[in-house]
Amino acid sequence: MRHLAMLALLATSLGWAQIPSDLQPSATNVWGAEYPRVDSTGRVLIRIKAPEAAKVRLNFWSGPKMELEKQADGFWTVTTPPLVPGFHYYTLIVDGAEVSDPNTQAYFGGGRPVSAVEVPEPGSTYYSAQDVPHGQVREVWYPSKITGSWRHALVYLPPGYDTETKLRYPVLYLQHGGGEDETGWIRQGQANFILDNLIAAGHCKPMIVVMAYGYARRAGEAPPDLSGKPFGSPAMLKAMQDMASVFEDDVVQALIPYVDSTFRTRSDRDHRAMAGLSMGGMQTFQITLNHLDLFSYIGGFSGAGGMLVLGDRKLDPKTDYNGVFADPSAFAKKVHLLWLGVGTVEPERMRAGLLRLHTSLQDAHIDHVFYESPGTDHEWQTWRRDLKDFAPRLF
Amino acid sequence: MRHLAMLALLATSLGWAQIPSDLQPSATNVWGAEYPRVDSTGRVLIRIKAPEAAKVRLNFWSGPKMELEKQADGFWTVTTPPLVPGFHYYTLIVDGAEVSDPNTQAYFGGGRPVSAVEVPEPGSTYYSAQDVPHGQVREVWYPSKITGSWRHALVYLPPGYDTETKLRYPVLYLQHGGGEDETGWIRQGQANFILDNLIAAGHCKPMIVVMAYGYARRAGEAPPDLSGKPFGSPAMLKAMQDMASVFEDDVVQALIPYVDSTFRTRSDRDHRAMAGLSMGGMQTFQITLNHLDLFSYIGGFSGAGGMLVLGDRKLDPKTDYNGVFADPSAFAKKVHLLWLGVGTVEPERMRAGLLRLHTSLQDAHIDHVFYESPGTDHEWQTWRRDLKDFAPRLF
Repeated sequence: MRHLAMLALLATSLGWAQIPSDLQPSATNVWGAEYPRVDSTGRVLIRIKAPEAAKVRLNFWSGPKMELEKQADGFWTVTTPPLVPGFHYYTLIVDGAEVSDPNTQAYFGGGRPVSAVEVPEPGSTYYSAQDVPHGQVREVWYPSKITGSWRHALVYLPPGYDTETKLRYPVLYLQHGGGEDETGWIRQGQANFILDNLIAAGHCKPMIVVMAYGYARRAGEAPPDLSGKPFGSPAMLKAMQDMASVFEDDVVQALIPYVDSTFRTRSDRDHRAMAGLSMGGMQTFQITLNHLDLFSYIGGFSGAGGMLVLGDRKLDPKTDYNGVFADPSAFAKKVHLLWLGVGTVEPERMRAGLLRLHTSLQDAHIDHVFYESPGTDHEWQTWRRDLKDFAPRLF
Repeated sequence: MRHLAMLALLATSLGWAQIPSDLQPSATNVWGAEYPRVDSTGRVLIRIKAPEAAKVRLNFWSGPKMELEKQADGFWTVTTPPLVPGFHYYTLIVDGAEVSDPNTQAYFGGGRPVSAVEVPEPGSTYYSAQDVPHGQVREVWYPSKITGSWRHALVYLPPGYDTETKLRYPVLYLQHGGGEDETGWIRQGQANFILDNLIAAGHCKPMIVVMAYGYARRAGEAPPDLSGKPFGSPAMLKAMQDMASVFEDDVVQALIPYVDSTFRTRSDRDHRAMAGLSMGGMQTFQITLNHLDLFSYIGGFSGAGGMLVLGDRKLDPKTDYNGVFADPSAFAKKVHLLWLGVGTVEPERMRAGLLRLHTSLQDAHIDHVFYESPGTDHEWQTWRRDLKDFAPRLF
């Protein structure tokens, strides 16, 4: 035990000694916080005050799990190996309590507010604020008879929306993943900057993007008790399935009518798209394929037909999804784009599901795009790249 | 020590035994979280998992500090005495690490994301979503040459803004407190619902509300290192003073021009107001009184002339604030409303500053409103009431 501790200490010391001088506070830090810091190789230095703790562990969700080392001043520190560029969720486990690092902004993931660092991607400017016209993101509250409540959504309006008052715009419905919420695509994904930059470069059409809260229960129904149920557990999966059908009704009967009556949309099916990541991709498949009268562009980012409908089996084009995949040419006439994406280093289960759907669609002669994000996991850098590839193909 | 522990255990047991059956999850909880729970007397039951912790303390910022008691299942619990109705920030201190409770949403306060509970106020509907037309809250990014950056602000647009396209609206600039950010008035204060309800009842004029990020530093200047400096420390106060003048330039030279060119505002001084809470009240006094060519309505919520300009002395109407208070009738002609508010149970230093300013203004024969929120501390329930009293007096 003592030997292991010595090794850990040695490793940490070496880590410190090797830190290049270009350590910078993460872009996700709160005002004035010097830690966490990120260097140009992607290493992250975490530091938290916990003077009376016996053990502090670092838990990057798609990355390293490491012990922090106690320093003489009551702070605990650790330096990670290089992480791939992008946005990385993490928590700290202080004597068994899994908590956020108070030094970063909180991002909603895993069903709770958690910490994150941003590792810059050299040369990538497509998801940050550039000197181009900026759209607005609006918070709206729409009434839903399905849920019997006011529901919160974010709506991106492209630059010029307020001045070009005669123009009407196509709409992309863009959903977050399981454990995240309607703020994810803006705060984690920076979707507004991705759209601003694509639109400014002429790479995609000006469009409205609607980001809704993907959880729903019918008016009067009790909430599922998910306390203590880890993300991805059977209880959470079941809750997702139940919710997916409620959310489907909410999107079709409450959200779309609200958006079309509130904003200057083009409200025919040729100008309505839906995409989502992980759980949001599964919801997208269910909602769009049950309502091809409403949607003609479909995107599944690291989640699509998978878990909710198909489980571990291949797609049967004759029967699954009401048989919409049975006739490839009829499908191609109706659906202008079917788009699937997955990161090359996502967990095997995730990749297997997407790859199985991809090959199922190939076997069924269904035209579609299959995109693999190099070197990225089940994480936001994958989904930023997905949106960057997907949006220019719309409308 | 053992005796104290026994007493604590006894107190906790009694607490549990007395809990009425109307304990409900707090409105601030994340989806599915059963804790924290609040009963109809305002008591709060907190519960967190920390199986290996030696000591867990609860820290309500304007409320009780208590030890949690370890249960056999690895969870720690505590029930507070009754809290006054409203929104209450808290943190948990797990073996010396001050962290958020993962069971609630995160709210930006004290310079970091923290937890909170909402204790319902019986009969009060003015700050919650009612079945009335809802305005929208827009996220905007405005360019500032003062700070050399894109700055984020939230803008409330009243119901009808998008359909009554010929109408122009007066504007209230509404600032958060020290340690908070531009999201505070919406997420903690629910200012949008307060305005929706006042407007629907005909109690206030439809208006635009601009909520900006109150921290600023000049382009090229290094950030102040506030890590480890507690909220309210001399270092933070100095940083606030430095920032106030940069923020003043940002508001006058970047934000107001952006708002007036982006939204359908009435851009004369008779239709522009500013108010803020705590630090935001001090910024409001500085900015409005230096720019009476731009503003004619002024509100200081639990913060006004106080710390930043006057320190612990009385106002000298002849010299302070460029002598604007020297001539009461000239002041009354220029300033349509000067409004001060403070909670009756705020810390003595806060109350003393506001009361001293109030009596200074009385002595100088300056017409103003002085409002005291009964039973509330330096906290959001005070500021919600302030806004409810202040907004109907505008425009």
